[in-house]
Amino acid sequence: MLRLTPGGVRRHHQGSGKALANVVNHEKQREGREDALDVLLTLVGGDLKRVNEIIVERMHSPIALIPQLAGHIIAAGGKRLRPLLTLASARLCGYEGERHAQLAACVEFIHTATLLHDDVVDESLLRRGRDSANALWGNKASVLVGDFLFSRSFELMVEDGVLKVLGILSHASRVIAEGEVAQLITANDMATTEAQYLEVIRGKTAQLFAAACRIGAVVAERPEAEEEALDTYGMTLGIAFQLVDDYLDYSARQQDLGKTVGDDFMDGKITLPVILAYQRGTDDERAFWRRCMEAQDMAEPEKDLAKAIELMTRYGTLAETVERARHYGERARSALDIFADGPAKAALAGIVDFCIERAR
Amino acid sequence: MLRLTPGGVRRHHQGSGKALANVVNHEKQREGREDALDVLLTLVGGDLKRVNEIIVERMHSPIALIPQLAGHIIAAGGKRLRPLLTLASARLCGYEGERHAQLAACVEFIHTATLLHDDVVDESLLRRGRDSANALWGNKASVLVGDFLFSRSFELMVEDGVLKVLGILSHASRVIAEGEVAQLITANDMATTEAQYLEVIRGKTAQLFAAACRIGAVVAERPEAEEEALDTYGMTLGIAFQLVDDYLDYSARQQDLGKTVGDDFMDGKITLPVILAYQRGTDDERAFWRRCMEAQDMAEPEKDLAKAIELMTRYGTLAETVERARHYGERARSALDIFADGPAKAALAGIVDFCIERAR
Repeated sequence: MLRLTPGGVRRHHQGSGKALANVVNHEKQREGREDALDVLLTLVGGDLKRVNEIIVERMHSPIALIPQLAGHIIAAGGKRLRPLLTLASARLCGYEGERHAQLAACVEFIHTATLLHDDVVDESLLRRGRDSANALWGNKASVLVGDFLFSRSFELMVEDGVLKVLGILSHASRVIAEGEVAQLITANDMATTEAQYLEVIRGKTAQLFAAACRIGAVVAERPEAEEEALDTYGMTLGIAFQLVDDYLDYSARQQDLGKTVGDDFMDGKITLPVILAYQRGTDDERAFWRRCMEAQDMAEPEKDLAKAIELMTRYGTLAETVERARHYGERARSALDIFADGPAKAALAGIVDFCIERAR
Repeated sequence: MLRLTPGGVRRHHQGSGKALANVVNHEKQREGREDALDVLLTLVGGDLKRVNEIIVERMHSPIALIPQLAGHIIAAGGKRLRPLLTLASARLCGYEGERHAQLAACVEFIHTATLLHDDVVDESLLRRGRDSANALWGNKASVLVGDFLFSRSFELMVEDGVLKVLGILSHASRVIAEGEVAQLITANDMATTEAQYLEVIRGKTAQLFAAACRIGAVVAERPEAEEEALDTYGMTLGIAFQLVDDYLDYSARQQDLGKTVGDDFMDGKITLPVILAYQRGTDDERAFWRRCMEAQDMAEPEKDLAKAIELMTRYGTLAETVERARHYGERARSALDIFADGPAKAALAGIVDFCIERAR
């Protein structure tokens, strides 16, 4: 049954791009020390305003539920990190036209579509208090509005008229879907290897970061080497970003960010801190992990979660996850070496810090 | 929880295109009197074989669940009507190259993705014995494999390299999503008008028929007038097709086709036979329709379904639905007038009969 009116949830009216542009500022203020994001916003703030206008204009549909639901997730959402990467990469490549804003909006539409599809659940549960679009409007509406945004994104790329961009984002979308399916398969499976985990996060997260950055070089019609460098920057940054996310899920820091701790644990999602703790555990501890993550047999979930965090802390796997993120962050930074120094390069290097520093 | 192995269901092994090609033959034999489909298959059988090969090759992924799940729905599925329309339209336009097979595969991938997404349910029910991919593998896998096929379809269009095709199919995909959302909104709402119903079926069904046909003219690089004619043919054929589908859902004929009767009724889906019966009903009858379709308050669903069919028969709304289909079928046939007579034109005209005659 369709729930058309989300109860008790702040509604975002999408008459202008203003509400959306404000999200970034609110987020920034809440964080306080996100200087790197500030720098980036100063650099491409005007472009981002245009991206937000395009997002609002182009998520319109005569079917009112579509902008309503899409607006909920787009406005409530994050920092516009992916479109910001496209804008900053284009700037780094000396691009001075206007195509990059529309393509950055495409990237955000694809990201939003994957969020909506990721919200789909097999049991019709409200997911632990998250006001996901799914919880408000149901599985089916989430899927179909995701499809709308995905299709719209390709319509916008066709308007843009450059086949290479369509190639990059259709490929990225396909790899994202593969990564998400791989994640589904590895869920509840303690036999998941580090290599498999890495393939999952490359697909589900890093591929879109890579595509977002590569497009910056493509609009600027820069040589293949610069495309490749920005792809590598985005890919390694995306891996670092997801590693920090997977660390944060078990960190008290997560609560400061207004999110619940232990969602991955409760979902049986196998992430690096868990894989490493399982590898290093005693037989008893391994049995504990299998009971929680595979059988999901938890009479007292909070107690099990506390024990899981205690084990990960004891074996240093949370710190090690952040350490790996730092390593990928370094690789991201190095990928920028072929570009001349300047404010865009500094801003992109700063984004590496921003992604890693979330862990502090 | 993911169910990886579908229990008690015939598995299709996708080692070659053979299994897929056979589906069409089995279907044909089962139907017996589908002469029009025979004619079409004779005309473009070689091309269809190539389409099936491309489908099998390109639904491949290192993530084994993807071809497994996609293969289940693609092989179990229908008559390849949409790709056949692309092949026949290309033939009608005198096309002699090889691009049409790959683009026909794109059309089938998009169709399959929409089927998978249409299978997503808000309650985790096995839907009345249908062995949908969803019932076998769960909501999430259906969504993600749909996303894979959708993305793959756009990758194949990028390989093809003609922006116009990407424009046609991204637009069609967006309109399909809008139609599906519109259908979600009109479900359980007896205030749904004929005009709203028509918009829903134009979007969810007819738009892809129109795009499939238009692509035939585009690959052959024919003038705009021929593109438009084929678009109109596909659009009106698609409307006729869906009208017959919506009739069949209440027809004993449906059982001969191996499907259950009354699924739309049980889902509260508002289709033309119901809209017309509600318009013509007494106050008591209208209360009956509201109880069943809106409140879905049915202590004895089978008895309510029998009464619904009795009302639709009494008011002649089932016959009238088929009559409307016939009318759209005539429009489809007329749209072919601008083309020279020949086997391709005869085959496409025959497909109109095939779609309508399913009602007999």
